[in-house]
Amino acid sequence: MAHRIAVIAGDGIGTEVMPEGIRALEAAAKRFNIDLAFTTFEFGSCDYYLEHGKMLPDDWFEQLKDFDALFYGAVGWPDKVPDHISLWGSLLQFRRQFDQYINLRPCKLMPGIKSPLAGREPGDIDFYVVRENTEGEYSSVGGKMFEGTEREIVLQETVMSRVGVDRVLKYAFDLAQTRPRKKLTSATKSNGISITMPYWDERVAEMAKQYPDIAVDKFHIDILTANFVLHPDWFDVVVGSNLFGDILSDLGPACTGTIGIAPSANINPEGMFPSLFEPVHGSAPDIAGKGIANPIGQIWSGAMMLEHLGYQEAADTMVKAIEDVLSEGNSQVLTRDIGGLGNTLSLGHAIAERI
Amino acid sequence: MAHRIAVIAGDGIGTEVMPEGIRALEAAAKRFNIDLAFTTFEFGSCDYYLEHGKMLPDDWFEQLKDFDALFYGAVGWPDKVPDHISLWGSLLQFRRQFDQYINLRPCKLMPGIKSPLAGREPGDIDFYVVRENTEGEYSSVGGKMFEGTEREIVLQETVMSRVGVDRVLKYAFDLAQTRPRKKLTSATKSNGISITMPYWDERVAEMAKQYPDIAVDKFHIDILTANFVLHPDWFDVVVGSNLFGDILSDLGPACTGTIGIAPSANINPEGMFPSLFEPVHGSAPDIAGKGIANPIGQIWSGAMMLEHLGYQEAADTMVKAIEDVLSEGNSQVLTRDIGGLGNTLSLGHAIAERI
Ligand SMILES: CC(C)[C@H](C(=O)O)[C@@H](O)C(=O)O
Ligand SMILES: CC(C)[C@H](C(=O)O)[C@@H](O)C(=O)O
Repeated sequence: MAHRIAVIAGDGIGTEVMPEGIRALEAAAKRFNIDLAFTTFEFGSCDYYLEHGKMLPDDWFEQLKDFDALFYGAVGWPDKVPDHISLWGSLLQFRRQFDQYINLRPCKLMPGIKSPLAGREPGDIDFYVVRENTEGEYSSVGGKMFEGTEREIVLQETVMSRVGVDRVLKYAFDLAQTRPRKKLTSATKSNGISITMPYWDERVAEMAKQYPDIAVDKFHIDILTANFVLHPDWFDVVVGSNLFGDILSDLGPACTGTIGIAPSANINPEGMFPSLFEPVHGSAPDIAGKGIANPIGQIWSGAMMLEHLGYQEAADTMVKAIEDVLSEGNSQVLTRDIGGLGNTLSLGHAIAERI
Repeated sequence: MAHRIAVIAGDGIGTEVMPEGIRALEAAAKRFNIDLAFTTFEFGSCDYYLEHGKMLPDDWFEQLKDFDALFYGAVGWPDKVPDHISLWGSLLQFRRQFDQYINLRPCKLMPGIKSPLAGREPGDIDFYVVRENTEGEYSSVGGKMFEGTEREIVLQETVMSRVGVDRVLKYAFDLAQTRPRKKLTSATKSNGISITMPYWDERVAEMAKQYPDIAVDKFHIDILTANFVLHPDWFDVVVGSNLFGDILSDLGPACTGTIGIAPSANINPEGMFPSLFEPVHGSAPDIAGKGIANPIGQIWSGAMMLEHLGYQEAADTMVKAIEDVLSEGNSQVLTRDIGGLGNTLSLGHAIAERI
């Protein structure tokens, strides 16, 4: 039986890196005898919005819900559509409606990539950020009062539920158990954000009782970002709310020098709905259309998708191919952001061949 | 007329670095003929809480409101009192009741201090974080429902007012105007936090019209933290909400290697109430009682206090003294966190003598 993959390339460099993601996946599928069937969708882009006045057709849920996974590029083009409209109209809908309550992002210093941190080598930085992906600070509850006057006031509710907090914590603890160091760090801000964050801490303490083998610590988000820079080697699995996870999963890849190549998975662990796999980088209007975007984030996200579908060996092979091509450091092949003279195509082809 | 300074040392290393802060201030006062009168208060510490069941006496506002400034150490000792109680019972009360709506924190790579970022030298990193300090994500509005059950839900309101947003933006734009690069960066997250943050962006755009000479840009907080690490030289004045400013003003000093020595000012610009000057570091229970804490954050905060009181030359002299002692790099003098063999006293004395 074929695995049905919905492909949404989105905007900007999303449309440029997507073909390389598919090329690599097809190479892995061939080698490991996996049957992947790709279906491409045009919606979920700002151009679609300009034509239709919305980011997605009304029946998007029906159209997508029976796919085995969504393979996603990048969305957003602020000059065409304000970000909060394009994102809340697409990506954030998928995450919420398909209950992809885990956002998983590896932060790994790869061979051949220079960390902006002094003296850090591959092996020194290797952790996961597990982000709550459906509630918390990203809420749609709130509004304005006394609009347009001096007394104007704007409210937005952060919403945490026991169900929502516990399930992401459980996922993070379970993940920590599969790792050699068995360490979990919780991101909090309970000294300043005095209602939701102490609650988060309580649930972490409660969940920790069920995992006596996991070493648990917590940091307030301010000093935690500092420690990502000062002591990236401290971390193994880091779990945070929607906003804190968002911040940490950009900062972490930045510390590994890989903001342009980091992957992510938006997972519905129960498999009730399709999970979504996308690079961490955005649509990058500044370099879009030049063919120079780095396709590794898309390819690596494809590897996370194969892992999710149960093909661990194929996934490992894809990541290994990325590492090998990076190690070799052939400047004709590598894109400019990582010191090469090549482009999206040259790097995508090299990785696909290696697979 | 003497300037009346209220001294609250607080907890942990706060009590150890405070005497060195005062020593340096007295040296500067002597040299520049400034009349400073210090009054010490015992409240605002966790020990006070254990004795009195509250962090502050009921009449703290009356007792403190006529001082010219508050010189503050550090508060918090989680093993004695939960952080959200000790902080909301003291520091956060001062900030809010004394309407210290600006939190100003310099991020400057100092001579003799090693940045954790590869290849960065003094001069490369030199910016200010301006943080909104009274509203936003640090709100006291919210609560729980279905407590203790599976359906438990916890809400906390982020509150932004036009008055609150505009006044911090105005301060930040004014500050940018005094700087050679005249550049302002706004921290946002309007793509995900869809009500308050687009409002913040709107107010920035509105205020920018009044400052045509200032170059304004904005970044979402996730990529902004990444850019602090990747491109710290891009920044001049960075303005953010209460939470975003909190994060950036720990991360910024971390990038300059000075998380233990960074100062901060909590300012009521109109001078209706006293402003408060404190090091960025906390009470550091892990090293408290050993006499090894670095006093530079406290001394540098003292310099910011003198600047606020109108003594620019004295403030500059204090900062220069810190820089000189750091440049010399005498290991007998420097504390261990910056590679020396000395302690709080040796470093404090050396700086005071230099002044
Ligand atoms: C201690 C804490 C409440 C405080 C804050 O978050 O404001 C601190 O981190 C700071 O930056 O002054
Ligand atoms: C584009 C934006 C809404 C999104 C987020 O904040 O979740 C992005 O930053 C991410 O991390 O996937």
